[in-house]
Amino acid sequence: MLMRKTCAVLLLIPLILVSQSKVEIANQFKDKGLESLYSYTLLQELTVTVGSRLSGSKNYEKAVQWGKKTLQNIGCDSVWLEPVMVPHWVRGEVEEAFTVNGKVKKKLSICALGGSIGTPKKGITGDLIEVRSFEEVAALGIKAKGKIIFYNRPFDATKVSTGEAYGGAVNQRSRGAIEAARVGAAAVLVRSMTNAIDDEPHTGMMNYNDSIPKIPAAAISTVGANYLHDQLQTKKSVTVEIRLSCVTLSDVPSSNVIGEIKGSEVPNEVILIGGHLDSWDKGQGAHDDGSGVVQSIEVLRLIKELNLRPKRTIRTVLFANEENGLKGGRTYASDYNGKKFEHIVAIESDFGGFAPLGFGVSADSIKFEKIKSFSSLLEIVGADRIKRGGGGADIGPLAASGTAMIGLNPDSQKYFDYHHSNHDTIDKVHPRELELGAIAMAILSWAIGEEGLK
Amino acid sequence: MLMRKTCAVLLLIPLILVSQSKVEIANQFKDKGLESLYSYTLLQELTVTVGSRLSGSKNYEKAVQWGKKTLQNIGCDSVWLEPVMVPHWVRGEVEEAFTVNGKVKKKLSICALGGSIGTPKKGITGDLIEVRSFEEVAALGIKAKGKIIFYNRPFDATKVSTGEAYGGAVNQRSRGAIEAARVGAAAVLVRSMTNAIDDEPHTGMMNYNDSIPKIPAAAISTVGANYLHDQLQTKKSVTVEIRLSCVTLSDVPSSNVIGEIKGSEVPNEVILIGGHLDSWDKGQGAHDDGSGVVQSIEVLRLIKELNLRPKRTIRTVLFANEENGLKGGRTYASDYNGKKFEHIVAIESDFGGFAPLGFGVSADSIKFEKIKSFSSLLEIVGADRIKRGGGGADIGPLAASGTAMIGLNPDSQKYFDYHHSNHDTIDKVHPRELELGAIAMAILSWAIGEEGLK
Repeated sequence: MLMRKTCAVLLLIPLILVSQSKVEIANQFKDKGLESLYSYTLLQELTVTVGSRLSGSKNYEKAVQWGKKTLQNIGCDSVWLEPVMVPHWVRGEVEEAFTVNGKVKKKLSICALGGSIGTPKKGITGDLIEVRSFEEVAALGIKAKGKIIFYNRPFDATKVSTGEAYGGAVNQRSRGAIEAARVGAAAVLVRSMTNAIDDEPHTGMMNYNDSIPKIPAAAISTVGANYLHDQLQTKKSVTVEIRLSCVTLSDVPSSNVIGEIKGSEVPNEVILIGGHLDSWDKGQGAHDDGSGVVQSIEVLRLIKELNLRPKRTIRTVLFANEENGLKGGRTYASDYNGKKFEHIVAIESDFGGFAPLGFGVSADSIKFEKIKSFSSLLEIVGADRIKRGGGGADIGPLAASGTAMIGLNPDSQKYFDYHHSNHDTIDKVHPRELELGAIAMAILSWAIGEEGLK
Repeated sequence: MLMRKTCAVLLLIPLILVSQSKVEIANQFKDKGLESLYSYTLLQELTVTVGSRLSGSKNYEKAVQWGKKTLQNIGCDSVWLEPVMVPHWVRGEVEEAFTVNGKVKKKLSICALGGSIGTPKKGITGDLIEVRSFEEVAALGIKAKGKIIFYNRPFDATKVSTGEAYGGAVNQRSRGAIEAARVGAAAVLVRSMTNAIDDEPHTGMMNYNDSIPKIPAAAISTVGANYLHDQLQTKKSVTVEIRLSCVTLSDVPSSNVIGEIKGSEVPNEVILIGGHLDSWDKGQGAHDDGSGVVQSIEVLRLIKELNLRPKRTIRTVLFANEENGLKGGRTYASDYNGKKFEHIVAIESDFGGFAPLGFGVSADSIKFEKIKSFSSLLEIVGADRIKRGGGGADIGPLAASGTAMIGLNPDSQKYFDYHHSNHDTIDKVHPRELELGAIAMAILSWAIGEEGLK
């Protein structure tokens, strides 16, 4: 009995030492992070000095240079650019829509959806048909011919997770033009993807199907959508005129930006952390995904600031082209997967720089439980909710080779108020909330770097 | 073996039924709440129509009438006013301060602290001494005579809970004038109680000790405090001139506002929910504590909206005078405690209308575990963190008679950016975050109403 006790005590000693040291380091990440709020300084540089950074734009290339220089400045062991070919869609000068009633025109707040073709210069004019589902569109049949289809299914307000509400509405934006064109419509207007009721349109990616005619697609503000809905209740018909000058040019060469701190013991095992460096051309891409970019840089900076070296390699990737093509994530996976090193885990931050609540994890049970075992460390910054299911668009292509996928889960209530719109600016980001997310990522990356996932 | 299994199944059936019904009701609270966002509508009425509502002001009495009418409109079984005598402090027209350098004056952003005496009409002029602790003040001794003591200990940025950071700094505001007057100082300036660096001063209560001279006390913005600190680093002396016209008048009669839904089975057991109806005279008291007020009303409205009747009585109390006297909470406890009914629990919301994370509980282990057992219901709105320690100032006086104390814990990062200042306005409150807090309170009140705490 005595001997067994002694053994237990002896066995516990190294465990406690390791564990105390992780607690101490987690607290140092917290203290250094909250004292400096450095991720906010970085976000100011990215949003104010560079600004919005759509794939293919000059601004995106400025952001690449900023990212490279910043990763070099914080003292990464290596920093490099990975070539990626990206789409080049340009919004153009003209995007406007009106309701037309004889000679009276009323302006609507719209913006082209990303990837949309433009209209003829004189615009497209047609009667509006309001729908809430693709079934309704299909049922229109011949009646849809030459009409403007108005998708007006709102976010489900009863979903506590706004991401879930987005998931339940976004096919109107991504596939609405295809389904409307299938029945001969001339254009589509899509209710903006947000819970907020205001006059700001929210852009975002839309798709075409090569076997179906391409028709222009625009987002309308929720106030505008409610107005059109009310008009359709009271009038026999509502005519809308839309003009867009957006255009898709040839693909252009661009880059992912990569920086890493080499592992001291198992350097070929890589913990990837990242966000996407591109944004839409509205606002400043402050939450989406400037926040994920600066948090991913801040993780490495905190490690350097504390003069630490992880056992495994921790690599920050600032991905190109998440918003309209995912070429950055796909190219990264194809270039690096199954090469000399193994991505044991990839952690993405792409739900905004709000107060972190925890992480969503897609991994097998053993890895999941291992990651969950770090929740007492993450509790230091209130980010201890480890739930099943999560990841990120950019890291998604790595999943095929067994990499554990992790997504930072911040509070979600305000994200879609700003997302893909002129409202996504740095004044909507709170310095401490942003930094707490970075610290949570640092704690988790460091812990996995020390212990691995096996 | 078989028989034991059967017994277990039989025993489980009623438990599951009750529990499913609570889950269903919790989900209905969520759906009805998030669809209506009614607590935000109420907050608009309170903040925009009534405005700020300092104890003793006409606006506070307007708020009383609004609260009474609102509780009547939602269909409470009884609504009444409870008389309370409250202090009557008035800010006055003049509150200004300058650094004085020969003929050059530079204006500082200050405001009188609540309860402060005014200065003579010509003001108080004195050299500034910066301190960070009462020990430093005491050590000044005779050097402090006639000087203006400048308390400049900032919030500890490394505290994740901003409430803890506040707790570590606020004695400068509450007791600073007493300790400075003890060594003969003429006035005090106190760094505003906030993490934010901006030019807005934050007011709040200060105290005097009858055996020590009363000296004027004002808060200075954090930008102003940093400026004074820098000046003191570079100059031999910094002279400041302060003028305040605030004054304390005689106590006035006022009211707590109370409404309740009677319990169907154990009506003498009361679940009290509440917040304080008074606010400081800066801003609109939107987060502090308009949010707690409207959430406490919304709980009863949701119950009525779903046509439910709780087994125990659920009572909403809108307390008077939390900010500068706590007369509402004290009078309530003395009027009602140990009377015909028993307050089994009191739940206060007074940390702002931000996304709810959970509740803090001060109660014995049996009650604590019982409350904790409802966390799976609270998880529906992400408010499942049940921690030891919590309550609220207004309900505090009930603790003496064994009432379990519960405080709603929302995300704390932004609270002190707005607290007690002109920044505390309704545009800082997010309709969904506010409503989620109300729903969390409804779920918890309902569950305790059904099961009690024994």
